[in-house]
Amino acid sequence: MTAENAVPKNAAEGVPGPDAGLLSPVRAGTPAEAATSDPAWLQAMLDAEAALARAQAALGTVPATAAAAITRAARAELLDVRDLSLAARETANPVVGLVRALTRAVAAVEPAAAEYVHHGSTSQDVFDTGAMLVAARTLRLIRADLERAAAALGHLAARHRDTAMAGRTLALHAVPTTFGLKAAGWRRLLLDARDRVAAVLDGGLPVSLGGAAGTLAGYLEFAAGSPGGSPPPDYADRLLDAYAAETGLARPPLPWHALRTPIADLAGALAFVTGALGKIAVDVQSLTRTEVGEVAEPAVAGRGASSAMPHKRNPVLATLLRSAALQVPVLAAGLTQCLMCEDERSAGVWHAEWQLLRECLRLAGGAAHTAVELAEGLVVRPERMRANLALTGSRVVSERVSAALAPRLGKARAKELLTRASAEADRTGRSLADALAALPEVAEHLDGARVERLLDPEGYTGAASALVDGELGGRGDG
Amino acid sequence: MTAENAVPKNAAEGVPGPDAGLLSPVRAGTPAEAATSDPAWLQAMLDAEAALARAQAALGTVPATAAAAITRAARAELLDVRDLSLAARETANPVVGLVRALTRAVAAVEPAAAEYVHHGSTSQDVFDTGAMLVAARTLRLIRADLERAAAALGHLAARHRDTAMAGRTLALHAVPTTFGLKAAGWRRLLLDARDRVAAVLDGGLPVSLGGAAGTLAGYLEFAAGSPGGSPPPDYADRLLDAYAAETGLARPPLPWHALRTPIADLAGALAFVTGALGKIAVDVQSLTRTEVGEVAEPAVAGRGASSAMPHKRNPVLATLLRSAALQVPVLAAGLTQCLMCEDERSAGVWHAEWQLLRECLRLAGGAAHTAVELAEGLVVRPERMRANLALTGSRVVSERVSAALAPRLGKARAKELLTRASAEADRTGRSLADALAALPEVAEHLDGARVERLLDPEGYTGAASALVDGELGGRGDG
Amino acid sequence: MTAENAVPKNAAEGVPGPDAGLLSPVRAGTPAEAATSDPAWLQAMLDAEAALARAQAALGTVPATAAAAITRAARAELLDVRDLSLAARETANPVVGLVRALTRAVAAVEPAAAEYVHHGSTSQDVFDTGAMLVAARTLRLIRADLERAAAALGHLAARHRDTAMAGRTLALHAVPTTFGLKAAGWRRLLLDARDRVAAVLDGGLPVSLGGAAGTLAGYLEFAAGSPGGSPPPDYADRLLDAYAAETGLARPPLPWHALRTPIADLAGALAFVTGALGKIAVDVQSLTRTEVGEVAEPAVAGRGASSAMPHKRNPVLATLLRSAALQVPVLAAGLTQCLMCEDERSAGVWHAEWQLLRECLRLAGGAAHTAVELAEGLVVRPERMRANLALTGSRVVSERVSAALAPRLGKARAKELLTRASAEADRTGRSLADALAALPEVAEHLDGARVERLLDPEGYTGAASALVDGELGGRGDG
Amino acid sequence: MTAENAVPKNAAEGVPGPDAGLLSPVRAGTPAEAATSDPAWLQAMLDAEAALARAQAALGTVPATAAAAITRAARAELLDVRDLSLAARETANPVVGLVRALTRAVAAVEPAAAEYVHHGSTSQDVFDTGAMLVAARTLRLIRADLERAAAALGHLAARHRDTAMAGRTLALHAVPTTFGLKAAGWRRLLLDARDRVAAVLDGGLPVSLGGAAGTLAGYLEFAAGSPGGSPPPDYADRLLDAYAAETGLARPPLPWHALRTPIADLAGALAFVTGALGKIAVDVQSLTRTEVGEVAEPAVAGRGASSAMPHKRNPVLATLLRSAALQVPVLAAGLTQCLMCEDERSAGVWHAEWQLLRECLRLAGGAAHTAVELAEGLVVRPERMRANLALTGSRVVSERVSAALAPRLGKARAKELLTRASAEADRTGRSLADALAALPEVAEHLDGARVERLLDPEGYTGAASALVDGELGGRGDG
Repeated sequence: MTAENAVPKNAAEGVPGPDAGLLSPVRAGTPAEAATSDPAWLQAMLDAEAALARAQAALGTVPATAAAAITRAARAELLDVRDLSLAARETANPVVGLVRALTRAVAAVEPAAAEYVHHGSTSQDVFDTGAMLVAARTLRLIRADLERAAAALGHLAARHRDTAMAGRTLALHAVPTTFGLKAAGWRRLLLDARDRVAAVLDGGLPVSLGGAAGTLAGYLEFAAGSPGGSPPPDYADRLLDAYAAETGLARPPLPWHALRTPIADLAGALAFVTGALGKIAVDVQSLTRTEVGEVAEPAVAGRGASSAMPHKRNPVLATLLRSAALQVPVLAAGLTQCLMCEDERSAGVWHAEWQLLRECLRLAGGAAHTAVELAEGLVVRPERMRANLALTGSRVVSERVSAALAPRLGKARAKELLTRASAEADRTGRSLADALAALPEVAEHLDGARVERLLDPEGYTGAASALVDGELGGRGDG
Repeated sequence: MTAENAVPKNAAEGVPGPDAGLLSPVRAGTPAEAATSDPAWLQAMLDAEAALARAQAALGTVPATAAAAITRAARAELLDVRDLSLAARETANPVVGLVRALTRAVAAVEPAAAEYVHHGSTSQDVFDTGAMLVAARTLRLIRADLERAAAALGHLAARHRDTAMAGRTLALHAVPTTFGLKAAGWRRLLLDARDRVAAVLDGGLPVSLGGAAGTLAGYLEFAAGSPGGSPPPDYADRLLDAYAAETGLARPPLPWHALRTPIADLAGALAFVTGALGKIAVDVQSLTRTEVGEVAEPAVAGRGASSAMPHKRNPVLATLLRSAALQVPVLAAGLTQCLMCEDERSAGVWHAEWQLLRECLRLAGGAAHTAVELAEGLVVRPERMRANLALTGSRVVSERVSAALAPRLGKARAKELLTRASAEADRTGRSLADALAALPEVAEHLDGARVERLLDPEGYTGAASALVDGELGGRGDG
Repeated sequence: MTAENAVPKNAAEGVPGPDAGLLSPVRAGTPAEAATSDPAWLQAMLDAEAALARAQAALGTVPATAAAAITRAARAELLDVRDLSLAARETANPVVGLVRALTRAVAAVEPAAAEYVHHGSTSQDVFDTGAMLVAARTLRLIRADLERAAAALGHLAARHRDTAMAGRTLALHAVPTTFGLKAAGWRRLLLDARDRVAAVLDGGLPVSLGGAAGTLAGYLEFAAGSPGGSPPPDYADRLLDAYAAETGLARPPLPWHALRTPIADLAGALAFVTGALGKIAVDVQSLTRTEVGEVAEPAVAGRGASSAMPHKRNPVLATLLRSAALQVPVLAAGLTQCLMCEDERSAGVWHAEWQLLRECLRLAGGAAHTAVELAEGLVVRPERMRANLALTGSRVVSERVSAALAPRLGKARAKELLTRASAEADRTGRSLADALAALPEVAEHLDGARVERLLDPEGYTGAASALVDGELGGRGDG
Repeated sequence: MTAENAVPKNAAEGVPGPDAGLLSPVRAGTPAEAATSDPAWLQAMLDAEAALARAQAALGTVPATAAAAITRAARAELLDVRDLSLAARETANPVVGLVRALTRAVAAVEPAAAEYVHHGSTSQDVFDTGAMLVAARTLRLIRADLERAAAALGHLAARHRDTAMAGRTLALHAVPTTFGLKAAGWRRLLLDARDRVAAVLDGGLPVSLGGAAGTLAGYLEFAAGSPGGSPPPDYADRLLDAYAAETGLARPPLPWHALRTPIADLAGALAFVTGALGKIAVDVQSLTRTEVGEVAEPAVAGRGASSAMPHKRNPVLATLLRSAALQVPVLAAGLTQCLMCEDERSAGVWHAEWQLLRECLRLAGGAAHTAVELAEGLVVRPERMRANLALTGSRVVSERVSAALAPRLGKARAKELLTRASAEADRTGRSLADALAALPEVAEHLDGARVERLLDPEGYTGAASALVDGELGGRGDG
């Protein structure tokens, strides 16, 4: 059993506390919240301590019985997370208190084993290994949710492969597109996000094992047996392997107390996740607007209720997604800045990472979870799409008529004529077809029937359907 | 009794939960953490509901007995904050559930009063008024802590008015300064921070009272008595005044559901607070370095202990300050961006503010609290300052000799000679005085005794002492 | 003549260079771009050097003729800004090269005066004083533009005081509001922004005068006359006053090389400015959408043209505003973080401010300039507002009917009935009046005519008009 | 010849302009500045137009002679970049004006070809393809500079494989490490950065080819030949391939006007680059401090000069690196947020990317360039490292003695004794060896000679040398 696979149970129980989720509905009650809660984090650090003892036991530095006792005692529910939080103020990190408490807990059941708790170790090894366990567990939740949401969007894209709708640029109808292409784009973004999460997971979130200043000297000293003696050959190397094996995490190229690549990578991936979800959210909101009405969020009893207005069904899922997407990129910037940390361990830069990382993980995780529901339940209204396409009286395909006229009249003249006809249609309320028919230069080259055909928005969706096919068919990314 | 003065009690009790403070020692257990906890936030929203009922009662729209019953029932401990958090996912905000729960609680003791809960109101009025109550309570804590820390720094500045030390620029000794001037600068920054906090408090954090879309129509409709009737004249105006009076908050110029000036102002002030504290932190760390040793954090049993290294006394308070200073500016940027929110209430931008605001408040509050201890207990070591000043063999005052020679030799030539002498002293290990004496051009204009006098670092602190006097004496800001 | 009033001329001429504005249309060609250009910045630093010489002359430390010669030579067009930029890499700041070049320029016309260039000074004094001159000049442009835009919005608010439109929350029609109230809110935000800009200007952007490490020792040494002599009493104090007078800037409480309050204040104010403008932009875009069509940007020949689509008139001004609003808050966060700078001058934190500050200034300035045109030319379409209000078949006033029924049926039952009737109307396409009439409980209490009256959206704008009057009438802020 | 390989020449000539580099010495005059300048960006967009014409020619939609004429005319020096910048205000992007100017330039030499400029295209296709060309060119510069700097650091690591120095954590000496391990860590970070840059380059920065709303309809329409006719089968597909081939860029999975994965990826990689460089910078500064003196920047005539202080040699290269590292992460956050862009093209979010992207590219590029010089010239002073290690009188190895005693006395008792001896040594100024000898419990288990051996800092560098060997030997990443 590797520590990394242990699922923290009931991690978010026992609320309230300073933060029970009241201000962050996007993650309240989601698996990601549980996976990143203080009890879960505490358990992950205890998993790190236990895995370290087992790794040392595998190499003969710690008695196997002691490692077993430490593993048995390393249970978050035996410790008081609030006490540890308060004690952390004295040392600027929670590990000093955790080691003390774990040592007591081990001593209570097997006094001889207590000696081997945190053997040769340092706070940062335990904290960072715990953090990577938490991150790995949460990233796996996120990856699965992104894949589920992407699958649902894939179905939407296939179903609406040919559903024409207005393409909108700079807030205005531009030319037609299809809802299938839009949904395929959303799916693509989520798969891009999935790929970036997977790259971090597969690249290997690493254990931290460096000792006080990244040289592993403490571990070697304890392994040396006698004062000033020599540790077994390759001991550091083998300890790294054993620790990685026990935790299920990767072996880092170097101790990374002050080389924060894993944190920056997490920040980048998580910001991408929420950004991608935020894109879907603002599109859903744009299409949900009362005047547009082309999609609606899934109807669930009680969902989207307003405290004041009985008639509303608010797009609450998109709202939650967007709330996360507005937060994570700036939080992630805070994390990325922590690459710039001085010395072998920074006095403050390391410490600034912790809450930022947790927030990024749980906001991204909560948002991914929320997105599944949105993607699986989104209501699409092709008839409203068609009606809206008609709103501009075909001006939405003026580009096409311009292209049709260009070979005859020159591109500039063609565009000029269309601009004039569009403006005329705008002013008079006539259809674009009529306005065009009134222009002799146009009529000379295009008869009424052809103009009519050119002006059918549903006939001007370009390669949209083919793009959907290529995206859904393709590239083994489903 | 105004709601705004009510101190939430035991607000952070009942942990653990998703966040018991384990990852944020800078605020764990501080008054700011309690003042911004979910229970405290819930209480503040209940305070808003109660104040609204009392304000309406004062204007005759709600029976006084109903307002009293609502006020009695509006107690956070009667509600389940975790249930409300989970319910908030359905509506994207916690107020819909809160109103339901409060209505039930009121109905349980006075059924007739239940009708008057959230009378004519909207979620945002209650949430934002609650947020302003929380913010005002926390800002007051911060202001007091900033003043205490500034006072302690003022004493340090006075005590060390003439304590010479190396001024350091771009990591190197530049010219001498005094520790008094440094401490006076720290104090000035904290008073600047205090002033910005005070400006937000004095400018008046406002109640939110706009109703569903900022027109107060719901309040007026309920006040009208009969369907389609008219509310009393100036009712909206008077309701705003009454609500402001009941909460102790200010009356806003306009309903601000989508005009987020108060949030941006809070963000700006809180980012300034942690930035100012962060400046002190990095200075303390710079002066604490083993090689420098000019200051030390207060010695407290157990404080600053390392999990591995028995000899260390880590600068944990400065570390905590710096951890906050690295987080709040980016969180505050997230808040400032929320000025850009669409329509009468944004679908997501409003929601993104909540956790960011809480984090800014409690990080700034925790840091200010921590700074008091640092400022009051900082250990200053003038003898180390003196020793370090001597390290460069007077090169730290080469500017002065250069200035002394300039009127005779021209500024360029003087600087050239000093650069040469400095380099020579560097290379040979000789003192700068000797190196200068060896230069005939120098010797011609300055005899050895004069050079000696010019090269005394403690004689070249410029206006440092006068600046301290001016700062401490002056301007009624202490 | 104070340096601070000098208007830099032709500051942006001589392009192209690394940045001629191609990627930042929001500020290309605006006065703020010119006021913050490299030539303008260079001129401001030269103004600082000249003002310093004049201040020293006023105190007798520098010959008046020398100060005059320096002032005459301190013209940006005499220096090569690109050469200075490249030279700045050697010293990490452009002042060392500038002093060298200015000294040469002075020497060319008055050799004796060259000795008095940068007399006792340090790079940061000159750079920061120059930066404050640039900032002050640009803030004044911004303040004026904000006031002009606010005035135009005030007129819009007055004209449309009673123009009903849909209030929109969470992307959906909520209850009615008025365009007057919306415009009054925009104006309020701009006046809030103006107030924050004015506070920074009035609070006094300070000169920088500290010398090498903030003690003014160099200035005093030069004033002492003879080596090791004493400067005149109160010399530092008087020099600060004189320098402030010569530049038109304020006198700071302490040298602020490492106390970056002015920078943080600028960052806060500028982020607010763009945030406020961004709010207007997203509202304009929301109302401009093809399906909504309630406002349009001013029609100008060529404006808003698309490279592909002849029919579009893109909301380009709002687009430009939004592009700035998305950039400045994060740039400002970068500036705010620079409060945390170590020692008497940081090795890098100071340097990180420069380009960030310039970007904030010119983006905010460009956006404010752009906003004037948007506010003065915005086309409002009350008929589209009315038509859109009708879209929901009166469901937009369901809150009102709910309130009317509440006294008879209880609030919960009333809301339930309205929710049911709204859903029924939704499903069947009937009007809400019909759906309500079909409910016996409703019919019993409200006859058809009364329902009809209650359902008129234009009759349910609450205190909107009164709020507009209060805002426009009031508080002397126009 | 692919457009992507064309090196823009003299791109930064013709200064001054709004930005000649004066405020950003970290990139002034570097190849990255030239590669991202407005002229270079303009050229890249022209390259995109030309490549599009050639791609269409390859497919028979455009006459080969026209494509050749367009290619010949697509030279930035023929256009006025400032005029285009100013014109961009009318359309919110510079492409409309560019197309107009290019069309004129083509018409001047080959009138028939003018018709084929921007054929079926849209502004965003040209702008984004140009941006990707600029990004690819700059990333290649960055990759090369990172590799050069990493190679230099590898040499440093090898040379100082066994050079002991103090490991520093939380600002204090912790336990010994080696300079080799530190340099190996710096190298590792730069290789991590190189890998992330390479991943973006290899993953393929894509062409943009979507037409007005991402359906390629315009391209297809023009290819159709006659109005309403059909384009050749697979035309969109083949055009994408041809365009990718002509530009040397990759083919995107879908048109990405509103799917901004490439931008977010660039932001992430560039923020990582500067963060990694910033880590080296703060370490260099920490080690450069006057009291520490363990490294110095390369001595170059004129480099690091102070405008006031003749004796200083400022760490200007590290200062420049740090100035970039403080800016890019927040700029990158701005870019990442742009993932959340509405519709088929956002009104403002797209536009916000441009300057942010350029700043990230040129700051990262300038910093990487600067880092080469720092890495290749860094002066290392082993004797100062040894002297500093001795400063704590061996307390820096107290962890080791504690470990040696633990098996005899228990870990807790051992640490307690060491803490006591360390404090005693602190207080009395005695050596730790003496303080330990005075403790009978210690003396009983460790004789004086053994204590002496244990207390030699150079004997307690753990696995540092082996880690260096593993890192330098290993993994084919050099």
